[in-house]
Amino acid sequence: MPEVLTTIPALRDRVGAARLSGRSIGFVPTMGALHAGHKRLIDLARSECDLVIVSIFVNPLQFDRQDDLERYPRTLDADVALCSASGVDVVFAPSSLEMYPSPPVCVVDVGRVADHLCGRFRPGHFRGVATVVMKLFEITQPDRAYFGEKDAQQLAVIRHLVSDLNVPVEIVGVPTVREADGLALSSRNQRLQPGERRVATVLYEALKDAQARIAAGEREAARVTAAAREMIERQPAVKLEYLEIVDPLDMQPVARIDGPVVAAGAIWVGGVRLIDNVICVPP
Amino acid sequence: MPEVLTTIPALRDRVGAARLSGRSIGFVPTMGALHAGHKRLIDLARSECDLVIVSIFVNPLQFDRQDDLERYPRTLDADVALCSASGVDVVFAPSSLEMYPSPPVCVVDVGRVADHLCGRFRPGHFRGVATVVMKLFEITQPDRAYFGEKDAQQLAVIRHLVSDLNVPVEIVGVPTVREADGLALSSRNQRLQPGERRVATVLYEALKDAQARIAAGEREAARVTAAAREMIERQPAVKLEYLEIVDPLDMQPVARIDGPVVAAGAIWVGGVRLIDNVICVPP
Repeated sequence: MPEVLTTIPALRDRVGAARLSGRSIGFVPTMGALHAGHKRLIDLARSECDLVIVSIFVNPLQFDRQDDLERYPRTLDADVALCSASGVDVVFAPSSLEMYPSPPVCVVDVGRVADHLCGRFRPGHFRGVATVVMKLFEITQPDRAYFGEKDAQQLAVIRHLVSDLNVPVEIVGVPTVREADGLALSSRNQRLQPGERRVATVLYEALKDAQARIAAGEREAARVTAAAREMIERQPAVKLEYLEIVDPLDMQPVARIDGPVVAAGAIWVGGVRLIDNVICVPP
Repeated sequence: MPEVLTTIPALRDRVGAARLSGRSIGFVPTMGALHAGHKRLIDLARSECDLVIVSIFVNPLQFDRQDDLERYPRTLDADVALCSASGVDVVFAPSSLEMYPSPPVCVVDVGRVADHLCGRFRPGHFRGVATVVMKLFEITQPDRAYFGEKDAQQLAVIRHLVSDLNVPVEIVGVPTVREADGLALSSRNQRLQPGERRVATVLYEALKDAQARIAAGEREAARVTAAAREMIERQPAVKLEYLEIVDPLDMQPVARIDGPVVAAGAIWVGGVRLIDNVICVPP
C-alpha cells in the first residue's frame, strides 16, 4: 500500500528523505478517478524512477464551471487501490484548504498557448492548471513528471511553464490510451449514458479522418477541418465545440500544413465534454 | 575571488555539488551597480549560509521604459570586486539571451499586490520582477534569499510568490541602508546631479513626517498623506509620483490606520526616479 499523505509538510519530509538517499523522484499529477490512461503514466514512472508519487487533487482553480467541479468524480479508495496495485510509493491527496489557504495572489499566466482550443472555451482553465502544477512541482520537486498526450494543450502549457521558468523537471508525454472502439480514456467517460457512449467515438473518427487526409497530401487545414467537422455535425446527439489544426508547440492554428501538426477537438455528448487529439504528419 | 558563472548549466552544476555536500545556499538577486545596501544583504547571507550566490542581471522584462533600461548602470568589474571583498562564493551574471532565449510564454502574474504604488505607474514591472525571481529561484534553488526593504512592494510581491506557489525558499527582508542625510541607497542615485542630490532627501523627510504623525495618534491616512505630499510639492525641483499609506502585506491603500502600515512614495528628481518607504506604527 502506498503512503497516503494529505499535508504539504508531510510530503516535503518524505521527498526530502528520498532526496538525501539519492533516490530519483517520479511524479504523476492527477485529479483522481484513475483509469488505464493514468495507469500507463504510473507504470512508466515506476519503470524510470526510484520513488513514485501520485497526486490526487481536484483543482478548483482550473474549473471554469462550478457544476463541472461539483460533478467531477471523486473515487479516492479506488484510486489508492489502483496506485497500490501499480507500486506507487506515495499518494498525495491534499484538501483544497491545504493547497489554497487563501485565494492566490500570484499565479502562472500562460499567454498565447492558451488562446485557442480548450483555452478559448474554458477561460482561466490553463492558468489554473499551470498554477497548480507549479505548486505541486515546488512541493514534490520531482526529477520527472508524467502527463498524458490526450490533453495536448495542457502538455504544451506545461512544457512552456518548465522551459520559460527554468523549472528543473523533465516533462514526459505519454500516448493516449483508448477503448477498443477508439474512445480516449477519460474520467468523464463514466458520466456517459450507454447511448451517449456509443456516439462519443465520432470525435476520434473525425480526427482520424483529418489525419488520413493530411497523410494523403492535403495541405489546406481549412479543407481538413471542414470534412472532420461535418462528420461530427452529422451526429445529432453530439455538439461540436471546436475542431482545429494547430502547431504542436504553441497550439496556434495552422493554415497550410508543412510539417507535423495536431488535430484537436472537443465535443459535448449530453452534459459531458470530451476532448481528443492526434498528431498528423504530411507525406 | 568569487567564481563568475554566466550560463545556467554551469550554475546548476555548482549548486548541485554544494547541495550534495549538504551546504546551505544563500542567494542575493541584484541588477548590479552594487552599493552598501546590497553589501548589507550579502553580509547577512554570508553570516547565515554556507554558499553565497549573488546574481547580477539587468532584467529587461521588468523595465517599462526602454530609456531606463538603457541608462541603468552596468559596473560588472566593480560589482565582482565588492562581491570578492564580501566573501561571495559565486557571481551569476547571465546574458539576456541566456535568461530569455525566446520571449517567455508563461510568466508570473502578480495580481492585486501590484495594483498600487509603483505597480500603478510601472505597468508590467512586478510581473517582470516576479518572473525573473521565479526563474532565478528555479536555477539556484536557494535555502534563503535576501531582498532589501527599500523595495517594499517588490518584497511583498516576492513573499506572495513564495507563499502562493509553495516555493521552498525562506525570504529575508533586510532594512534599508541610508546616507547620513537619510537618502536611501539606490543604484539610481549615481545619476543625480549635485543639486538634485541635495533635494532628493525630501522624500524620506516627508515619509518620516508621516511616520511621526501616525506615531502621535493620527488615524486618518488622508490627513497624513496630504501633509507629506505638501512637503514634497513645496520643493520645485522634485516631482511627486505618489505617496500612499498601504497595508504591509498586500500593499492596498488604507483609509483608517488601525495597525502597522507602510508609508511609501516615489519622486522624480530631474530624470531620475527614486522610491522609499517607512513602517509606521500607531500608538
